[in-house]
Amino acid sequence: MPEGQVRVVVEGVRPEIDCGAFPAKRIVGDIVSVEADVFTDGHDLVAAEILYRQSGEEVWRRSPMKPVGNDHWRGDFLVSEIGKYYYTVEGWIDRFETWRDAMSRRVGSEPEDGLRTEYRIGADLIDAAARLASPEDSARLRDFARILREDAEEGGAKRAAFGEVATLLQRYADRRFAVRYGKELCLTVDREKAGFSAWYEMFPRSCAAEQGRYGTLRDCEARLPYVAAMGFDVLYLPPIHPIGHTSRKGKNNEVLAGPDDVGSPWAIGSEEGGHTSIDPKLGTLDDLCSFIAKAKAQGIEIALDLAFQCSPDHPYVREHPEWFRKRPDGTIQYAENPPKKYQDIFPLDFETPQWKELWEELKRVVLFWVGHGVRIFRVDNPHTKAIPFWEWLIGGVKDRHPEVLFLAEAFTRPKLMYRLAKVGFSQSYTYFTWRNTRAELMNYFQDLEKSGVREYFRPNLWSNTPDILPEFLQTGGRAAFMIRFILAATMGANYGIYGPAFELCENAAKHPASEEYLNSEKYELKRWNLENPWSLKDFIARVNRIRRGNRALQSDANLRFHGTDNPQVICFSKATIDLSDIVIVLCNLDPFHKQTGWIELDLASLGLDGRSTFQAHDLLSDGRFLWRGASNYFELTPESLPAHIMKVRKFVRTERDFDYYF
Amino acid sequence: MPEGQVRVVVEGVRPEIDCGAFPAKRIVGDIVSVEADVFTDGHDLVAAEILYRQSGEEVWRRSPMKPVGNDHWRGDFLVSEIGKYYYTVEGWIDRFETWRDAMSRRVGSEPEDGLRTEYRIGADLIDAAARLASPEDSARLRDFARILREDAEEGGAKRAAFGEVATLLQRYADRRFAVRYGKELCLTVDREKAGFSAWYEMFPRSCAAEQGRYGTLRDCEARLPYVAAMGFDVLYLPPIHPIGHTSRKGKNNEVLAGPDDVGSPWAIGSEEGGHTSIDPKLGTLDDLCSFIAKAKAQGIEIALDLAFQCSPDHPYVREHPEWFRKRPDGTIQYAENPPKKYQDIFPLDFETPQWKELWEELKRVVLFWVGHGVRIFRVDNPHTKAIPFWEWLIGGVKDRHPEVLFLAEAFTRPKLMYRLAKVGFSQSYTYFTWRNTRAELMNYFQDLEKSGVREYFRPNLWSNTPDILPEFLQTGGRAAFMIRFILAATMGANYGIYGPAFELCENAAKHPASEEYLNSEKYELKRWNLENPWSLKDFIARVNRIRRGNRALQSDANLRFHGTDNPQVICFSKATIDLSDIVIVLCNLDPFHKQTGWIELDLASLGLDGRSTFQAHDLLSDGRFLWRGASNYFELTPESLPAHIMKVRKFVRTERDFDYYF
Repeated sequence: MPEGQVRVVVEGVRPEIDCGAFPAKRIVGDIVSVEADVFTDGHDLVAAEILYRQSGEEVWRRSPMKPVGNDHWRGDFLVSEIGKYYYTVEGWIDRFETWRDAMSRRVGSEPEDGLRTEYRIGADLIDAAARLASPEDSARLRDFARILREDAEEGGAKRAAFGEVATLLQRYADRRFAVRYGKELCLTVDREKAGFSAWYEMFPRSCAAEQGRYGTLRDCEARLPYVAAMGFDVLYLPPIHPIGHTSRKGKNNEVLAGPDDVGSPWAIGSEEGGHTSIDPKLGTLDDLCSFIAKAKAQGIEIALDLAFQCSPDHPYVREHPEWFRKRPDGTIQYAENPPKKYQDIFPLDFETPQWKELWEELKRVVLFWVGHGVRIFRVDNPHTKAIPFWEWLIGGVKDRHPEVLFLAEAFTRPKLMYRLAKVGFSQSYTYFTWRNTRAELMNYFQDLEKSGVREYFRPNLWSNTPDILPEFLQTGGRAAFMIRFILAATMGANYGIYGPAFELCENAAKHPASEEYLNSEKYELKRWNLENPWSLKDFIARVNRIRRGNRALQSDANLRFHGTDNPQVICFSKATIDLSDIVIVLCNLDPFHKQTGWIELDLASLGLDGRSTFQAHDLLSDGRFLWRGASNYFELTPESLPAHIMKVRKFVRTERDFDYYF
Repeated sequence: MPEGQVRVVVEGVRPEIDCGAFPAKRIVGDIVSVEADVFTDGHDLVAAEILYRQSGEEVWRRSPMKPVGNDHWRGDFLVSEIGKYYYTVEGWIDRFETWRDAMSRRVGSEPEDGLRTEYRIGADLIDAAARLASPEDSARLRDFARILREDAEEGGAKRAAFGEVATLLQRYADRRFAVRYGKELCLTVDREKAGFSAWYEMFPRSCAAEQGRYGTLRDCEARLPYVAAMGFDVLYLPPIHPIGHTSRKGKNNEVLAGPDDVGSPWAIGSEEGGHTSIDPKLGTLDDLCSFIAKAKAQGIEIALDLAFQCSPDHPYVREHPEWFRKRPDGTIQYAENPPKKYQDIFPLDFETPQWKELWEELKRVVLFWVGHGVRIFRVDNPHTKAIPFWEWLIGGVKDRHPEVLFLAEAFTRPKLMYRLAKVGFSQSYTYFTWRNTRAELMNYFQDLEKSGVREYFRPNLWSNTPDILPEFLQTGGRAAFMIRFILAATMGANYGIYGPAFELCENAAKHPASEEYLNSEKYELKRWNLENPWSLKDFIARVNRIRRGNRALQSDANLRFHGTDNPQVICFSKATIDLSDIVIVLCNLDPFHKQTGWIELDLASLGLDGRSTFQAHDLLSDGRFLWRGASNYFELTPESLPAHIMKVRKFVRTERDFDYYF
């Protein structure tokens, strides 16, 4: 038999991911909204609270919930620290409110003298609460109870009494038969950068000032002001470890390297070391620490690449051959996805019977870099390593260093991509890279919302990577780069580009049907002309300044699409929850032609009415438009500026009765 | 650390209700479809199976699943017995399929002599399977392995070999690292009547042949052929227990009864007994048993009412005053929902400290009637009794008597209504009673589908009850009754009416804004003129014959709405899963005017193409229409027949090349 007197139901608690198997994700300072269905049989009224606590706290803190209709309740709490929080929901029958509600329907419809017993029932409830109350409250409560019991008191006085006492009584509710939701749900609270970041990817060895010299970490230091001026705050370096010689790939991924070919940084490991070593040509560990410090001084965090795979020359291959899969001919299985072969890379075998030692070693690698000041990792192809490993690794690292962030480069099938996010990755590459039309973009972002994936999956929108030069950029000219940049930087609070290829509008593919760069930096040194007049660096700096100046663009929580009568143009808004900052983005998705038309704003979602004029201030061009109502005209010319990033400035009445903007 | 080598993920198993807290419901003979997301990291292919077993079985049975795209898998199994089933999903890496898939991409793109090692890997996999296989299979497998290993064998022969061996290998998969979904999910399998039933509610005391006499169970026996002729298979009687005297209500729910007033059957209990007694005026327990047997012989099951509440004269009030709530003045709290008062009814107090004794007694009541042959209960206002009680009661009764069915009369808020279905009610009254327009009806049924409520909530569609004479019936005349009947009997596999008020088109309300019947049978004896010429009895019989003759109408699984260009007309279809039986219903929702227009069928959902002609055979009028494509004309006249119930008869080519219908 269950506990029979317990009659309240608490179900449908949200957020809840896979029945509580995984934590939802939030950012420090967030107000976390929790919802639940709370009800009981019959006509009794219920009350509900969120119970929440930070990891390490023993005692639950409480936050009241409010009914929002259809037995659904909502409340919230603030997460003020990074780390883990736990929460659940408690419901109970609110006997006094139930009594008061019934009384409100009795009064007027029943004779006053017939209510004597009813008043006594109320008085008994108040007395019961008084027994739980502080001495001061107790005295007040007993006073109220006396008024209700006193036949001499008028009905009006009694009703005033029980109206007044309600708030006080809430503190002393009868929770003997309270129900707690069956699960304690978990929340991962990350630092702000997990939710708002601008990434720049750059090959250190291409940072030398002179053509043909192998760039070093010191050269990278010299590049920092350039990156900082564009407004990026995460600088991600492809692997900086020694590169293997055996089966090294040549330029343009040729099967055999020439004697001077530098090899792919992802073919990690040589006689000079493995995953905790730095390619001596790039510099030393001290150089890295200096670089990290200099970057920090300019507002930039360095992200390293975690590519858990080995060149045939990696120390692991000699020291731990049991971590690799052997073929029947005794050779080690190299990476392949037939017909593609990666002879320069040995994958680690996550099914090895020595998996425990392997896991521990890989964790040691991460903690080694954490120990040297790295707090962000971009993880290469996490979807080709065992998923339970990531859950264990990320969980273990974050237990000790909750500020560490992991970006999953899992360009793979959606279920696998989302599972990696569930098990702990802080941010994820997405399909945005290939979503170009209005319908594609809207479907993608609306699906993230509707499916609940947003609770744990933080999109990081990349317009290009060293592996991906999308067709849109190959063919659309400079405007295409601007379009993709604006979309990434405004639809996503987190986004990234691979530069300088991006800002220099590099668009030469290896061959027409390929997304590979011609003469890819993955296999050779580059020297980029950063002062090229067509560089987008100033444009990028402007967009990043807009992002920093508008809180609406610093979160993915409030993205909403609006209609346009021209399908070549996308219109969406982002807003803070309180609507104090609203940004409307209008972007021409056609890089070749001017597009004009009318937008149709969902005014209610923006807190606007159809009657008032408001100013749409284009932060890109500094142009200002007076708009009114839902329908407003636009005209977007790709060769100058293909988009508006409009800040909504509402009119307010001042004391002097002038119209002012705020 | 988790089990590190286990790399497969099984998630999103469906059906699953509230994380497995409640069973889904199915009917004996159903093919249960189970779905799940099954995948692993990297490029390895996975395989999956459903594991299922009947309650009491120790060993899982297995049924293969197939991938349906996007890492989603589907399989099914047959439930051949009533009672409980359990199921879960297992996934593993299919090493041989992974190898075979890679080989299929290697062959042709790599030189044959470079594949020697690959063939050896395949041979090793086959040998590993051979070690698990039966002697016969083992010999065959080793034979295949030998071919793959043999350098002398041609590539073609090898490929033929590994093509052939695949099916055999599936039996001996390497499941060392198989993953089982974390939960065993439960299924309640009910007998057929839970999924397909036509209910008729009737007051026994109004069954006397002569005006003014108190009808008896023997009179009810005489009424059975009338009910059977209409085609009903469940006859539900309001409470048949002794009725209290104290505070008895008079005609039309007058506060005070006159000396001859018969009282509400729901005011249960008097000095003549309580919930296990029969009102002596109705007859004896033997009369009931005889009635049940006679009904059974005519294809009708008797359903009793479980109304767990007491008149002030009920034996419980004397014997168990602790089961009732006392007011401060020492009186027992009667039922009320201010300003409504039900002085003739004392609710049971489910928060009594003696709740265990109360629960056991109420279970005894149910088992008492089960012991006398009752297998269906209509439960009065279950939403005003503790929900955990129902879960315990229904679970306990069905453990011993899985054939017992419970219909929840919970006209209450949706969350509470659905929770009662989750905890075990076999069928539920619904909001259908008040859904009149096309939009209302479509929204209601589509919401049930979309929300997943259908997995556990079986709607039983009532057009009227003794408590509810909907406005549509009050004002729409005879056609309104026909419309509501057709909708209930065809949209719902389970439906019911309260008669003879329904078939005689009784439409007088107590007052204009009321849904109460004038001179309600709840408070007085009635004598109905069953031979009234406007009776719908023959019409009802026809519709029930159509239901019995068409399997499409015997399940709620395949309801689909189709377009019409006239919003006064609703069009929907029901079909068996294999589309061997398809019924299209077209119903004029306007009881006053002829409506014409065009339907727009979703042909694909019906397995029809746009080119072929098919016959739409109206089973109501026996009219036949030759239809072609999605758009077809209709004309529905409420005063004759407001609806078509069309059986789709497709043309088939016979051997003689004539067009035939089947």
